[in-house]
Amino acid sequence: MNKFWSPQIADLVPYTPGEQPKIADLTKLNTNESPYPPAPGVEHVLQSFDSARLRLYPDPEASDLKQALASTYGVDTKQVFVGNGSDEVLAHAFMAFFRQSKPVVKPAITYSFYEVYADLYGIDLINMPLNSEFGIDLGAFPAENGGIIFANPNAPTGKAVPLYQIEALLERNTESLVLVDEAYVDFGGDSAIALVDKYPNLLVTQTFSKSRSLAGLRIGFGIGHPDLIEALERVKNSFNSYPLDMVAIQAGVASLADKEYFDACTAKIIATREQTVTQLQELGFTVLPSATNFVFAQHRYLEGGELMGFLRTKGVLVRHFSRPEIANFLRITIGTGEEMQRLIDTLKQHPDIISLPVSAE
Amino acid sequence: MNKFWSPQIADLVPYTPGEQPKIADLTKLNTNESPYPPAPGVEHVLQSFDSARLRLYPDPEASDLKQALASTYGVDTKQVFVGNGSDEVLAHAFMAFFRQSKPVVKPAITYSFYEVYADLYGIDLINMPLNSEFGIDLGAFPAENGGIIFANPNAPTGKAVPLYQIEALLERNTESLVLVDEAYVDFGGDSAIALVDKYPNLLVTQTFSKSRSLAGLRIGFGIGHPDLIEALERVKNSFNSYPLDMVAIQAGVASLADKEYFDACTAKIIATREQTVTQLQELGFTVLPSATNFVFAQHRYLEGGELMGFLRTKGVLVRHFSRPEIANFLRITIGTGEEMQRLIDTLKQHPDIISLPVSAE
Repeated sequence: MNKFWSPQIADLVPYTPGEQPKIADLTKLNTNESPYPPAPGVEHVLQSFDSARLRLYPDPEASDLKQALASTYGVDTKQVFVGNGSDEVLAHAFMAFFRQSKPVVKPAITYSFYEVYADLYGIDLINMPLNSEFGIDLGAFPAENGGIIFANPNAPTGKAVPLYQIEALLERNTESLVLVDEAYVDFGGDSAIALVDKYPNLLVTQTFSKSRSLAGLRIGFGIGHPDLIEALERVKNSFNSYPLDMVAIQAGVASLADKEYFDACTAKIIATREQTVTQLQELGFTVLPSATNFVFAQHRYLEGGELMGFLRTKGVLVRHFSRPEIANFLRITIGTGEEMQRLIDTLKQHPDIISLPVSAE
Repeated sequence: MNKFWSPQIADLVPYTPGEQPKIADLTKLNTNESPYPPAPGVEHVLQSFDSARLRLYPDPEASDLKQALASTYGVDTKQVFVGNGSDEVLAHAFMAFFRQSKPVVKPAITYSFYEVYADLYGIDLINMPLNSEFGIDLGAFPAENGGIIFANPNAPTGKAVPLYQIEALLERNTESLVLVDEAYVDFGGDSAIALVDKYPNLLVTQTFSKSRSLAGLRIGFGIGHPDLIEALERVKNSFNSYPLDMVAIQAGVASLADKEYFDACTAKIIATREQTVTQLQELGFTVLPSATNFVFAQHRYLEGGELMGFLRTKGVLVRHFSRPEIANFLRITIGTGEEMQRLIDTLKQHPDIISLPVSAE
């Protein structure tokens, strides 16, 4: 603590992003990035970009990107908000909707940044435990709340709740915002965007960082009722008028234009995931059913932290969380087929894994 | 107001950026952009960028850019913070330092976003009037405060306070943060970065949007004591881990590498400014002494809003503020020599200007 700081700053516990090491020959399965490059149109945007235009401010509305998103998702541009990654969209949403007298409800185990935002803006939380299968039990969420947020599919579990359960929640929770963070939805979840016209308190966020292979350019968005978008715009325009730069706006448009490439990449990742799940099961892992580009797996006998350390010494990075309920799990991003084979081959080098009987389960 | 909004949101009055019209053949002198393209190295960054890398998250620390800034300004990387434009740096600074029990002091007329940030974070302000020559009177700033912020050179007046006055302020104001926003300093001000090693409560912010011709890529930075930078990092990492994208980081590095180009551009803009001042004076304007890439000018007889409207009908955009003390002024960005000649020629078409006697003053 320093005497020039605002008093609240010393107590902040910032979010810790997955490691971005600068080491060669690593297989990086720790931050849920796509193993495939972005749509070819993105390369064209970069190479043909007139750099002289960069002297000008970008469109503060990022209208081209909003229009492309509206067209892709079948909504009006007034239902679309864009930000510098979905993290910025989420941060603005906490400010715009969740500073209420009642606490905000979230799953106890979910994207850990939600707690950080709540802390930053002085928002009280109610943490709802996952059920015995590590699923989100929306039916148990309390009626009295200042808002609800959850990731669907959830992170780091990878599990999705079906859309009918979200609609049931919206039917009974009509007095506060319901925010569904769909960072991973393109790998197997059902998007709640289908419900935004029906429920004026539903906000859905998504990102270009996973299924669109554009983590490096920072593009996220929210879709919901125009009144919700207006609140986000008010906060955004009280914070930073131009969060998306010119290159990111045009690259985002190019990515949305290539549906065929997008579908092919997500299909490949889903197929690799299913193969990886089988291979992990054969090595003695139990794997939660994943609707994402990662799997959440625990070994029957071995501890998660130890396994992560072992893999790291062999040049394979996966993510491990120290929280007791999930400390035995590894969160493993789905890379290319070759990368996942390296993971499996490396696990087989572990002295206590190769000695286990192989079972098809 | 919508029942799902946080109660504070309805009262926000967001910042209004200068117009970014999509009309051809406009001379755009309203948002203080540079008329020159960024350093040639920026074009090289775009054209040679390996778009496949965009699938990965950028370096959350933007270390390459911090190192280049540290080297450029002769400080340690621990004294450097970077953000998505200096607006984001300023927003985080309000959160990190200015949420104090005492109010924050600022000039009554300065960059209008400061009021918006204060509003967003619930910070009380004391507005100090400018002196009779539209200068900031730092000597009059009250000793009891929760922080001090001002732009130097100031906007929209264009006037700079000398460094010795800032040092005198720092000598007596030792218990709260002093933030000097130097968005325009490269056009004629003296940077307070020279003082950061001596005063642990001094934070200086700058931007790549003006003198480095990179408004389109959103890069800003702050320089100060490592303890101040730590507070900014805490807020940033509680908000968005990766505010600068990969392209912006590398373009920023390329811009800093070309000092010769930077010096040539700022020198040209300063020379054009001095010529424009003379021409405006000959048309009956009084012009405040500018240390920026714009001039703040009022005509002896004609009203600012009317003149702005006249220029707009002729395809020349300048900025006008309705605030009574400065309602007679136009803020005119310095463009190329040709653009400024179009401004002067257009003003000469005004029926009440061509009839005025020309005076060398």
